[in-house]
Amino acid sequence: MTLADIPTPALLVDVAALNRNITTMARFFSEGSCRLRPHFKAHKTPEIAKRQLAAGSCVGLTCATVSEAEIAATFCDDILIANEIIGADKCARVALLARGAGVHGPRNITIAIDSEEGLKQMAAAIADREGPRRSEPDPLIGILVDINVGQNRCGVAPGADALALAQRVAATTGVRLRGVMGYEGHLQPIPDRAEREHKASAAMADLVATAHLLQQAGLPCEIVSGGGTGTFDISGRVPGVTEIQAGSYALMDTDYARLNLPFEHAFSVLGTVVSTPRDGYCVADCGHKSTTKDHGLPSVKGIPGATVVLLNDEHAGIALPQGSALKIGDRIELWPSHTDPTVNLHDLFYAVENGRVVDIWPIAARGYRNR
Amino acid sequence: MTLADIPTPALLVDVAALNRNITTMARFFSEGSCRLRPHFKAHKTPEIAKRQLAAGSCVGLTCATVSEAEIAATFCDDILIANEIIGADKCARVALLARGAGVHGPRNITIAIDSEEGLKQMAAAIADREGPRRSEPDPLIGILVDINVGQNRCGVAPGADALALAQRVAATTGVRLRGVMGYEGHLQPIPDRAEREHKASAAMADLVATAHLLQQAGLPCEIVSGGGTGTFDISGRVPGVTEIQAGSYALMDTDYARLNLPFEHAFSVLGTVVSTPRDGYCVADCGHKSTTKDHGLPSVKGIPGATVVLLNDEHAGIALPQGSALKIGDRIELWPSHTDPTVNLHDLFYAVENGRVVDIWPIAARGYRNR
Repeated sequence: MTLADIPTPALLVDVAALNRNITTMARFFSEGSCRLRPHFKAHKTPEIAKRQLAAGSCVGLTCATVSEAEIAATFCDDILIANEIIGADKCARVALLARGAGVHGPRNITIAIDSEEGLKQMAAAIADREGPRRSEPDPLIGILVDINVGQNRCGVAPGADALALAQRVAATTGVRLRGVMGYEGHLQPIPDRAEREHKASAAMADLVATAHLLQQAGLPCEIVSGGGTGTFDISGRVPGVTEIQAGSYALMDTDYARLNLPFEHAFSVLGTVVSTPRDGYCVADCGHKSTTKDHGLPSVKGIPGATVVLLNDEHAGIALPQGSALKIGDRIELWPSHTDPTVNLHDLFYAVENGRVVDIWPIAARGYRNR
Repeated sequence: MTLADIPTPALLVDVAALNRNITTMARFFSEGSCRLRPHFKAHKTPEIAKRQLAAGSCVGLTCATVSEAEIAATFCDDILIANEIIGADKCARVALLARGAGVHGPRNITIAIDSEEGLKQMAAAIADREGPRRSEPDPLIGILVDINVGQNRCGVAPGADALALAQRVAATTGVRLRGVMGYEGHLQPIPDRAEREHKASAAMADLVATAHLLQQAGLPCEIVSGGGTGTFDISGRVPGVTEIQAGSYALMDTDYARLNLPFEHAFSVLGTVVSTPRDGYCVADCGHKSTTKDHGLPSVKGIPGATVVLLNDEHAGIALPQGSALKIGDRIELWPSHTDPTVNLHDLFYAVENGRVVDIWPIAARGYRNR
């Protein structure tokens, strides 16, 4: 099967580039004391996550939703849901997931909390859980206190507030305080390396200082989690940070590519040229129902001078360089500007090696599994 | 089942508002000579399309993709795919679809073309089609010549170019020239009514003039199709226009709501408050993996003064009015800025009447059915 046989629009993964990205990142974390916990939310694809785990230097997977964790738990025993889990239904699912047997041993489930209400809800779900037990005593659910390191989204303030919440966690039955997390998401896209380095180091210093506060108070703090694809080699070298949550590095997008990271574009959206209404312009069938534009318009792969100029629901309008021979029926590939929401639009990857489709990888955790 | 029982994020449809929107539009097209062909792409939901057809004044459905047409054909006999269909696989699917029996009678399938290559590909697929015939002779596939009425996306120029292509269609075996279409998509969002009216009338005049050219040349031209939710009552009253392709009116979004149209918000994204890290601000679990921001940030329903200030993959940050009592675990609803791509993110609607969930409607044509 070649690219010409794939119904469009479709998502392609370049297996060789993916493997190189995964190897590069695993090699980085094979040195130093910090390890990698790849973020499953970026690709939601078990085959990719399994390759990340197999490459080494990983302590498990990071997820954004309970549903992602339910899928990840079919092949991974140590999962951090790096997000607030609220609602009796979701807390109950986490409680049951933690009781299940892992693939290779006990299953460890850890979540983030930033409120007493969140803690109370999870504790209630643990007390209520039913069904056969995995062991005696029941496995505890790990808790990281979510710290606001400047992103100003979720999280408690570093310092005293974080310590107070950690003490409540430590005093709560059914859960186990494991440490702190703080995602410096606002710093990931800073193009200037020195500025990114300066700010990310400062954000992680806040996080580590709070971890020390917990330790000084005699509380457990084995995990200090932060970082992303834009800061993996900055935050991952701050003493005291134990895990990095990077996800986009495996597939990459044009937004992260601006940062001169050691990762390649490993996925693209395949489209078909459906209209060539005038010279120097064509329309392909891959609009923003197949590649999002929340981080800007996608780029055209492999055609120097070609530029996406419009992206409607089902149409990508492309300005072509002079003399382009692109014609109706030809295939084109777009490099998305943002990995996560683009992958979330698709049900499967066509895995490509040397121009041939060698496999189909289900994006098993997409769609309703945003919950 | 109430809203509190729904796992979030989720898509809600307000059945009463939907029915009012559908009735209002059907009533408009019950007068005059123009009829409605609702666009299925906006909601991809059979239950909604069936209500549109049942309300009357409809000549069938409009679709954007072959996959949408395959779903629509399970309950509708007259389908226009208002898009260029390119590729042997897609042309073959259209050819087979046209041969199938309709629900109530013969099935009519019509597509848009804007190139000789597109015409050639469809004719080849018709010549090649296999399997049991519905009747003798095989049903013809309807063709509309797609005219560029100023949107500058697809389409041939009005006038001589359009006539030349129409003549090629008329001379081609297996297809049946049915007329012309021209979508004035670029004019839909113009906020000033007088300007929108002036420009849409001019665009439709170009389309009708081309229709007259075809008729003068002795060619069939029973369909003259254009219009959308922003221009339905403008383009739908231009003499000679026979069908309007509006879709968004049924569910509405904040982008169209700016235009003071006679339609209400009939759908929303349900989220749960997961974090209240500081006064006057909260975070809900409905990010842009559940409501797109390509037409701007969504609005908060039912909380005057509340504003969405950030929309990340899984998080909506909301600035709250002073004194807001919103707390962790509460449900909120967002009105999306763009109907079509938001619905495309979900697998089902929860149908709500008087605050109760009365039904679940599968969004049967989403996802890989963008093809």
